[in-house]
Amino acid sequence: MNIKQVILQAFHDQPDRFISGEELSQMCGCSRTAVWKHMEELRRDGYEVEAVRKSGYRLVAAPDRLSAAEVTAGLGTQRIGQQVFAYDEVISTQPLAHDAATKGAPEGTLVLAELQTGGKGRLGRPWHSPKGSGIWMSLIVRPVIPLPKTPQMTLLTAVCVAQSIREETGLPVKIKWPNDIFIGDKKVCGILTELHAESDRVHYLVIGIGINVNSVSADFPADLAQIATSLRIESGQPVNRIRLIQRFCRIFESWYDHFLQDGFQQIKENWEAHSYTIGRDVSVQTISQKLEGRAIGLDEAGVLLVRDESGHVHKVYSADVNYRAKH
Amino acid sequence: MNIKQVILQAFHDQPDRFISGEELSQMCGCSRTAVWKHMEELRRDGYEVEAVRKSGYRLVAAPDRLSAAEVTAGLGTQRIGQQVFAYDEVISTQPLAHDAATKGAPEGTLVLAELQTGGKGRLGRPWHSPKGSGIWMSLIVRPVIPLPKTPQMTLLTAVCVAQSIREETGLPVKIKWPNDIFIGDKKVCGILTELHAESDRVHYLVIGIGINVNSVSADFPADLAQIATSLRIESGQPVNRIRLIQRFCRIFESWYDHFLQDGFQQIKENWEAHSYTIGRDVSVQTISQKLEGRAIGLDEAGVLLVRDESGHVHKVYSADVNYRAKH
Repeated sequence: MNIKQVILQAFHDQPDRFISGEELSQMCGCSRTAVWKHMEELRRDGYEVEAVRKSGYRLVAAPDRLSAAEVTAGLGTQRIGQQVFAYDEVISTQPLAHDAATKGAPEGTLVLAELQTGGKGRLGRPWHSPKGSGIWMSLIVRPVIPLPKTPQMTLLTAVCVAQSIREETGLPVKIKWPNDIFIGDKKVCGILTELHAESDRVHYLVIGIGINVNSVSADFPADLAQIATSLRIESGQPVNRIRLIQRFCRIFESWYDHFLQDGFQQIKENWEAHSYTIGRDVSVQTISQKLEGRAIGLDEAGVLLVRDESGHVHKVYSADVNYRAKH
Repeated sequence: MNIKQVILQAFHDQPDRFISGEELSQMCGCSRTAVWKHMEELRRDGYEVEAVRKSGYRLVAAPDRLSAAEVTAGLGTQRIGQQVFAYDEVISTQPLAHDAATKGAPEGTLVLAELQTGGKGRLGRPWHSPKGSGIWMSLIVRPVIPLPKTPQMTLLTAVCVAQSIREETGLPVKIKWPNDIFIGDKKVCGILTELHAESDRVHYLVIGIGINVNSVSADFPADLAQIATSLRIESGQPVNRIRLIQRFCRIFESWYDHFLQDGFQQIKENWEAHSYTIGRDVSVQTISQKLEGRAIGLDEAGVLLVRDESGHVHKVYSADVNYRAKH
């Protein structure tokens, strides 16, 4: 941790207390003048710091801005989110994360941006990611798993994002197969998993996560307003992005360790319990065929199972799923 | 095709006949002087061309050198091998193929080299690839298949390499799971499949193939001489590398089209029929466990099935397999 991170961590650990310059200088291993200089830097970064003679410093408010120091302060994980690259504006966080992974970035590295000018969803579709109102991030992981199991990581991530949003906001989010998070009939988050592998070894995964956090209705183009929403629109109040990212990192680390140790079964059950898809009548468009039936669950590998009217159960690996009105 | 390729194609189609300068100039759409100039260039490239006044040109011998013109002349495929990048010396053809794929190289593109200074096998292991005596190549394909099926492409490639070698040399090659080609107890070829994908779409595969073709015993370092061999050592005569590459391209295209259309079943049966592994007592070292038992076959997805002494059948995704002496 650098000095700024140590100071933010101290503020985080003792949220309402004044901390003396002397105490901070001991924590940081630097002079009180250096502490004062870093405090000035924090103010320039948008932090509101109260300084009272003989009492010390107290954090009044942090800026609504994603930074490595904010994400790592008080994070409490071993790996996930411990290394953060935060950008103001990028085309997309995905290729930056691929670059970092190729150059050896450790497992758990997060790439964040306030604004993406060319964000992409699955199958190369555009993803609207306006400035400052969302979480646009890419997570690097290096699981030692066989290639056929990597789609399970997408389902795992959906479980983690849904749980993070539920715990942080209380909103009733659901997972739409394979990797969208919905509130009611509107999408609030998309997940895109990309990977580099050889046939019996995964080199790394880059998991892209886009969450509409504090967007208001006017932020959505007309064609998106009908099908997309944000946590703020649904909850009626702004949501702290840093806290949501930190909660996600902790939940992800916990489920990911569970997955590596004990496999997919419990994640599958959790996914099904919070699914928007299972039990519904669906119309499925794969690359090669169109299929109607009822989504009945995931198989042990995480493939969607759809039973058609004749009773035949189809395995669906990759498709667009739409919901049909009840007969 | 450029003019050199048209000339080589004409020589290929009429192997022993003299072809007149007039005829060639019509085929190429250029002057007889231009034909003559290209013939001089072919000679500089190492081709032995006989020229007889009033009869024309005849190809006596082609150089033992991998070039795009040689591979594509008379190839007879739709996609596989139609685009070729041939190098004298590279670190490895794999990263060059990744670069080409990222920049949009069409399916079937081949990257070849006479010498690799840093060739790699699976799991990052070094692969010995000396100058001029082998086929060191990477093939780019873009199959529209779900991610969990990509390891089947490695098994498909092994079937194709084995069939190519059998048809071209008559040697009794066998496939060792997952991706090595053996003659007797010695390895003659390794296959390494790498890929870039998202969880429901394969962007591209780069299939690396290394075949020891014309190496003699002295070409192998002492530690390899016990476990590796070449087609020349086994057959007692040099093998034409271009013809072997061309045969592989045709066989691959045929099996690959079959795979995309009709799935894995017939490839699985062919793999099993030529396997060095199935039916043998094996010792299996995976990342997490050591297992002893009998290799009994592949499952429908292409995963190796090993039955231990208690009768339990294990699925083996990624492992090193060794053979045990019979009890």
